[in-house]
Formats: sequence, structure tokens, C-alpha cells
Amino acid sequence: MTYHTTLDRAVAAAAAAAGGYGAWSAERRRDLLHACADALEAARPELVDLAWAETALTRERLDGEITRTTGQLRLYGDHVAAGRHLSGRTSPGAAPGGADVYTVDVPLGPVAVFAASNFPFAFGVPGGDTASALAAGCPVVVKGHPAQLRLSRRIAEVLSGAVAGAGAPEGTFGFLDAESTDGDPNKLSIDLVRHPVIKAVGFTGSFGGGRALMDAAAARPEPIPVYAEMGSVNPVFVLPGAVADEAGREKWATALATAVTGSGGQLCTKPGVVFVPETDDGETLADLAASRIGGAGPIPMLTAGMAAAHRRWSEQNQARGASGQEADPRDGLPFAVRISAKDFTGDYREEHFGPATVFVQADPADYPALADSLEGQLTATIIADDASDADRSAARALLPSLVAKAGRVVWNGVPTGVAVVEAMQHGGPWPATSAAWSTSVGTEAIRRFTRPVALQGVPADLVG
Amino acid sequence: MTYHTTLDRAVAAAAAAAGGYGAWSAERRRDLLHACADALEAARPELVDLAWAETALTRERLDGEITRTTGQLRLYGDHVAAGRHLSGRTSPGAAPGGADVYTVDVPLGPVAVFAASNFPFAFGVPGGDTASALAAGCPVVVKGHPAQLRLSRRIAEVLSGAVAGAGAPEGTFGFLDAESTDGDPNKLSIDLVRHPVIKAVGFTGSFGGGRALMDAAAARPEPIPVYAEMGSVNPVFVLPGAVADEAGREKWATALATAVTGSGGQLCTKPGVVFVPETDDGETLADLAASRIGGAGPIPMLTAGMAAAHRRWSEQNQARGASGQEADPRDGLPFAVRISAKDFTGDYREEHFGPATVFVQADPADYPALADSLEGQLTATIIADDASDADRSAARALLPSLVAKAGRVVWNGVPTGVAVVEAMQHGGPWPATSAAWSTSVGTEAIRRFTRPVALQGVPADLVG
Repeated sequence: MTYHTTLDRAVAAAAAAAGGYGAWSAERRRDLLHACADALEAARPELVDLAWAETALTRERLDGEITRTTGQLRLYGDHVAAGRHLSGRTSPGAAPGGADVYTVDVPLGPVAVFAASNFPFAFGVPGGDTASALAAGCPVVVKGHPAQLRLSRRIAEVLSGAVAGAGAPEGTFGFLDAESTDGDPNKLSIDLVRHPVIKAVGFTGSFGGGRALMDAAAARPEPIPVYAEMGSVNPVFVLPGAVADEAGREKWATALATAVTGSGGQLCTKPGVVFVPETDDGETLADLAASRIGGAGPIPMLTAGMAAAHRRWSEQNQARGASGQEADPRDGLPFAVRISAKDFTGDYREEHFGPATVFVQADPADYPALADSLEGQLTATIIADDASDADRSAARALLPSLVAKAGRVVWNGVPTGVAVVEAMQHGGPWPATSAAWSTSVGTEAIRRFTRPVALQGVPADLVG
Repeated sequence: MTYHTTLDRAVAAAAAAAGGYGAWSAERRRDLLHACADALEAARPELVDLAWAETALTRERLDGEITRTTGQLRLYGDHVAAGRHLSGRTSPGAAPGGADVYTVDVPLGPVAVFAASNFPFAFGVPGGDTASALAAGCPVVVKGHPAQLRLSRRIAEVLSGAVAGAGAPEGTFGFLDAESTDGDPNKLSIDLVRHPVIKAVGFTGSFGGGRALMDAAAARPEPIPVYAEMGSVNPVFVLPGAVADEAGREKWATALATAVTGSGGQLCTKPGVVFVPETDDGETLADLAASRIGGAGPIPMLTAGMAAAHRRWSEQNQARGASGQEADPRDGLPFAVRISAKDFTGDYREEHFGPATVFVQADPADYPALADSLEGQLTATIIADDASDADRSAARALLPSLVAKAGRVVWNGVPTGVAVVEAMQHGGPWPATSAAWSTSVGTEAIRRFTRPVALQGVPADLVG
């Protein structure tokens, strides 16, 4: 089967399914999403094995990720069945002649979803974009990540079975992978986004990948929205009170080291830059955290390519305090870079995947200006002593800059661990994402794939 | 003063104002919007005169439009002061460690607004884009329409005074016009959209103009959202019951003729295509409406260029039933085109500004397929006999196709007259607009210029 036949088949089936699936009641969509969750649950041991073999993530992490993913599918189904995704605006008697105006919400049509490699489930084939598009009433055509061929295919089989079992039209769930590409996965991606049948795009991945999809979508005869989450450095600002005593330094050194090294530092919310006070206390925190990061030992990374990129970043920074030892070609050696604020330039402001972070010694009075100098971020974090008036005052001065730069601001926590809840905003200004008004995590993600329609005087019994 | 100095000054002032004005309380923004409304009100007689001289719209229409515009400014101010523009999502205890997650909303920054010519107030310099951006906390840089130089400048003076009087930073309201262009208004527009300071764009106008701004915005190093409303043909579907008796035919012939000829047919919601049953009743309705449209006599159009385009469209259709008489070069002669469904192709599916419409004789059983064949629309309308089971049944079959194509569906009314209310959706799928999720009329328009930020565990007393 040639590449174009495969792509064309998948999108033609999605187009054919759009009207029928789009007219499904919210209750039926809920049942379909629950069926997908049940099917993944039933295949859990097999999926953990496949994922472990292709990602090198720990079985414990992968097992937890399946739980998160099935919970997400069920939550989004429950959310639409409860009508909580609806715009629900009403203006009684407001139109000329006194007619009521009220909104209904309609699905956009077939959505192209690009699976990320770092969360093979939660942002993979069965992940948040797939779940929110299906919840919205949109068929999906999912491109599996080329680094996870076997897992992606097996998940696609499991979901296809669940979707068919729920009675959805063929084409409601479509899947493409590297075998559909004639060897060029980028061409497949661009052709998918260019296909006139596709009405929206969900993507989590690199800046270069996201930008290429955006450019292709914007150049179409009919431009379509691209919801691309492209990552960030997730700055953390440590205020003096938080590290004024040993207990605070110990606590935050451990928390930061865990956030930097967990999942091999391959999370879009990994704290990639940590501003610490240029004091003995700040130095001690950075020392402790750096030591714990280094102490985590070699961590197998998602791909040999990511490990190589991490190694290059490590080598560039040897002179600045990177530490490590020889390792397997797929291993990433955790390290911490230590610089002063005047050296916080260029590369240090860009996201690097892998178990490493940059500690920047700075005067806390300069934190707002440093924050203002950053690009758009998924998250920004303040670590402070809740009981310290000085910290609270400094935080009050810093918060406007963080709110202006980030999609989420964390207080006394770490940015990793994104709760899948209604108030979550996993988004943020360019270049963190392509559409700062939207979120790719949480129930609000569903709204990316619907649009409101105002009905003016239309008798309610004639509608859906 | 050279063109670039003027552009650069306006955007630099907007950038300087963004932080200060963006931090204003909603109450202060309300007061500013009310002050703008009051200032327009105080200048009303002078503004009507200026607008009448440059647009040739009737004084009565212009007077009413000022009332709509001042009401809009006040409504948007009241809306934000009441906090109704906020996303307001809360997930108590939902984050890791039990922290609360809740959203706040922040302005995007300076917004470029392009004034339309057909509503010199409501979509002009003081129009919906300006009002919603200012309500959102964003400075605006407004480009006046080149056909309304004197009016635009005077409105800009009035608003600048009101904004300064309200104590807003200089640059909160900026204005550019053809004098800033070195003779090329298109270049000014593109350069404004390309300017790195600008964070979003509001536009109402032609498809070509909107697409050019979208392309420029998408090609920036930092792409920005463009909210472009580019018009549509606003199909009307007349069901048999509505024209089964003379009273119905009289009523709808008058309503349609008024909607086609009002404001010289220069409304983005003008019904440009009316599907009528291919029966004697349907013919009679079209005859009556066409006669009333033709009987409206010559109508001065917004510009000589629009009148010339309208005349070309009229001449192309002489063979198909257009009627009229010689007229002043700026006059538009109202006319109706009569075709059968098989001839409903090409040009007839595209928007034509001016007092003309196309009656398409069709079998009502074919209405859903005809609707499916249309491009995206701002509006779609059904005219039916409320008491007729046959009409209700036909409407039920037709509505899904209309909801899938339009931003607003009207029942037993005409699409002109867009209520400025919370439930209004003045939007719709491509090519009617660039962002089908958004609306350019109604209080939801404000949300285009803010983005939500999730706060995780952040003590409420430290924020804003």
C-alpha cells in the first residue's frame, strides 16, 4: 500500500465519519471514551511491556501513566455528558423582534493528532488531544511517534476495537505511522495537515516540529487552527526565606532534583532554569540539588538521538560545572549547570530535554527583570517561605511578571505533575504554545475542537 | 513626519502603555469605556455630519449607529467590571500536594485594529474591536479607513481625549491613518501587523484584506492571532408554509427587500442568496421582493469604487433579470437576480456588497444539500410557518446543515441587525472569519484579547 493511499484512506474515512459521529449525543461519546479507557485497562500489562521496551521509561512510571490516561478519557467523557463543555450563553428576548438568542456548540470536524514520545500514553496515541477531540465529537487521524512503532500500533488496535465496539462510524479513529510514510515522517505530517478534510491539529513536541505544522496550516487555502505545545524552560524563582534554614534547603533540593531527573528530565514541565539568591544559603541549595541530580546516575533516555543531544549539551557545559561519567549510548547523565545572572544568555534560555538544569545565581531584587526577559513559558514557579513577610512582598512584586509570561504559576511546588482538572491551563504565550488562549491538558482542552453557534429564535425542539 | 516614524511612535507608545494599562482594575477600565461613550455622545451632532459627508449613509442610520456604539462601549465596561469576562475556573485541592488550582485572565498586549468602512462607528475607530480590546486591558493601535479620513481623525481626537481624561497611560489609544502611509495604506497595514510589539489583530473587511493580514501574522517570528471577519452571502431558506398565503408573502417580501437595500446593502449580514420554493408561491414571493428591491431607487454607496463594483455585478446579470436606471457615479441601483438551483454556481456563491440579492428557485427537499455545498457563513436563516408541521419537519432536517456552516442561525427573521449581547456569535467557519471559535460582536468578543493563567497554590492575597 503506498503512502498516499494510506493517508488518503484515513482522511477519507474520517471525513465520512464526521457527520455521523458529530451528531452523536454527549452520552454516546461518554460511553465511547469509557470504552476506550476500559480497553486500555484490559491491555495494561501488555502495553506496559511494549512501552517499556520502546521508551526505557520505568514500568512504575508507565503504569501510572496508563492510569492517568484512562482517567483522562473517562473524565472528558463525563464532562461532555454533563454538558460542562458547552458555552451555554443565553440572551433571552435580545434579538430584534424579541427573539431569544442562545448558543449551541458544534464539532469542527476531523482532527489531526500528533503523538508525543515522552508520554507514550498521556500525550501519545490515546492521549489528551485524542481524548478531547473525540469528546468534542470530532473524528481523529492520529500519527504515531516513529520511536514507538510497536506500541503505537498496538494502542491503535485497542482503540479501534473499542471505537468500533461502541458503534461509532468507521473512520472515527484513524491511525498513521512510519510505514505510511515512504520513509519520510515529516512529509507525512505536513501532508496530513495540508489535507483539506482536516479541520484542526493537536501537537505536542519540539518547537521546530510545531512551527512546521503551523506554517503548513496557515498556508492552506483554508487555514486551520494548530494547537501546538512546544515546551519551555519553566523557570523557578527561589526566594531567600525558603532556604534560610537547613530544613528548607533539604526539602527544596530534593524536590528540585526529583523534578529535574524524573522521567529522565524528558518532561515539557521540567524546571530547566532555577534562580537562586546569590547568598551562601542560595549557594548551598544549588550545591545540594546539584549533588542529588548528579547522584541520580545514568538514566536511559527515550531515544539514542535524545541521549546524544543531551551529551552535547553536557559537554558544552563541562567548563561550567557539569559532572558525570561514561555511559551507555542511550543513557543520559544527570548534571547541573551553575552560572551567574550575567551569563544567563543564549542557549541557557532554551529548552533542553534530559536530566539537567541550570542554576542561576541572582539578586532576588532582579527577579522581576529576569522574568520579563524570558520568552513565553508553560509554567513559572515561586519557592518561598509562606510565613515570611519579605518573601511575600518579593512574590507580590514578581507575580505580575510571571503571570505575563506563563500559562501556569506554581507556588511552593514543582511544575512537573500537571493535574488533569477543569482549572488546569497547560498553555502559555509563544513560543511555549501556538494558541495561548487554549490548554492541552484538562477539560477545557475539549473546547479547542468545538465552536459556538448562536441560535436566534430557533425553537428548541427543532435542534438536535 | 515620515511614515515609519508615525507607525513606530504609535506602537512604541502602545508597548509602553501595556504594562500600566494592563494592570488597571476592571472598574477603572469600565470608567474609561464609559468616558469614551460619553465623549462620543457629546460630539454626536458633529460626528453625524462628518460621517454623513464621507459615507453617504443616512443621518438616521448614523445617529442610531452612534447609540449602538456608545451602548457597546458601556456594556463591555460593565461586563468586565462585573467580572463576567473571566474564565473563572476553579479546581480546589486538585494539584499535587493538595494545592488549589484557579484561573486568572491577563491581557495579550497591544492590539492592532482595522476600522471597517460600512459601520463608521460600530465597526470603525470606536467600534467593537477597540471596545473589546480596551475592555480586556489591551492598548489599541487603530488604523482608520482611508475612505473616512476626516471622521476617523475626529473620532480619534475624541477618544484620545477621553482616554487621557480617564488617566490612562499615553499610548493606550493610538491612531494611524492614510497620512501615515506615504501613499500605500496596504503597506501600513502589513507593517503594523508585522510589528513585534503587536500581539493580536482585529479586522472587519474584505476577504482579500483579511487573508493578507492573516498571512503576515502567521509569517512573523512570533505568530499572533488575527480575528478577521470577512463576510458571507448569508443564505436564507424560505419554506413553503411561510409563503402559502398572501399575508406571508407580503410580510417576507418587505422584510427581505428592507434587509437587502438597507444601508445600501453594505452590511456583512445582508441576505445575498435567498432560496425560494420552485412553486407559484415561491415565484410570487421573489417577484414581490424583487419589485420592492428595485423600487427602492438609487442609493448612494460608501465609495465610488463600491458603486462601480456594484454596477459591474449588475451589468453581468442584466440577462438574468437585473433592473435599474441610469444613476450618479456613486449611486447603487438595487436589483434582484433570479436563477434556478442548477445555475447557482461560481460568482453567485460569493459576497457582493451593494443593494442586490440572488433568488434561487429550488426544491425545498434539496435545501440541505444546497446548504452543505456552501462555504462557511456568518449567518443562515430559515423562514417558515411556525404552525406548519411540514415546515417544522423540513426545518429539523435542514438545521444540522446550517449549524455546520454558520456562526448564527436565524429563525423567522432577517440576518441584519446583530444584537450586541452575551449570546451573540458573530463569527462562523472559514472563509466567513479566520477564527470560528471567536465572535467580533457581543461581550464574548472581549475574550479574544485575554488568555487564562492557572494559579497553583498561589495565595490569593498576593495576586492583583
